[in-house]
Amino acid sequence: MFSETLKTILDSVDGAIACSVMGFDGIAVETQPRDMPESGVALDLQAAWVEFANLMSQAKNTAETLKTGKVAELSINSEKVITLLRMVNQDYFLVLGLLPTGNYGKARYVLRISAPKVAKDL
Amino acid sequence: MFSETLKTILDSVDGAIACSVMGFDGIAVETQPRDMPESGVALDLQAAWVEFANLMSQAKNTAETLKTGKVAELSINSEKVITLLRMVNQDYFLVLGLLPTGNYGKARYVLRISAPKVAKDL
Repeated sequence: MFSETLKTILDSVDGAIACSVMGFDGIAVETQPRDMPESGVALDLQAAWVEFANLMSQAKNTAETLKTGKVAELSINSEKVITLLRMVNQDYFLVLGLLPTGNYGKARYVLRISAPKVAKDL
Repeated sequence: MFSETLKTILDSVDGAIACSVMGFDGIAVETQPRDMPESGVALDLQAAWVEFANLMSQAKNTAETLKTGKVAELSINSEKVITLLRMVNQDYFLVLGLLPTGNYGKARYVLRISAPKVAKDL
């Protein structure tokens, strides 16, 4: 199930903070770790993801309109956290929060191979 | 000047299609190559960039509000083109269109080191 896949993603990427399966409505289906640390960063992460879900949705619509092809991935790199969003299907995507010092290349790779697994479980 | 920096970016990244200095209003200050090929891809690129400028602006505002730190980079990967956007200052950013087979890591690196050069010229 999702939780196992999400745990595997977190375990395999250095610097990964949290990972979630979210819908384009900004509602998380499942998040790991389940109990995110009560730090400011974690609270801001969840709020940020809701906003980023909206960006992902807009990028998806823009790319379809403009024929640049379907959006597979969106990455937003800010000072304190790197956020990777990977399309699962038309309704859901994977989101991963990563420390700026984390392994960005590995994160992209793991999300890419995990997305089809999550799609099967949805 | 910009045009030289933009040419250098294009020349140093395998698979780079076009590069631009843009404002958050979606207006390009300078684009290389100056005469983009009259293909569907190039036309769609310029239209896409105007939309992506809007996404970058939203990501910037979101990150500031949520204290995840300033946004340095945004990346939108779709089937036909990878778009990298790199903040230059509060008003301008660099945008690079890259073939999906292009050198993504090199593109990120070159934009990162080029942004301060462009900032000086603005």
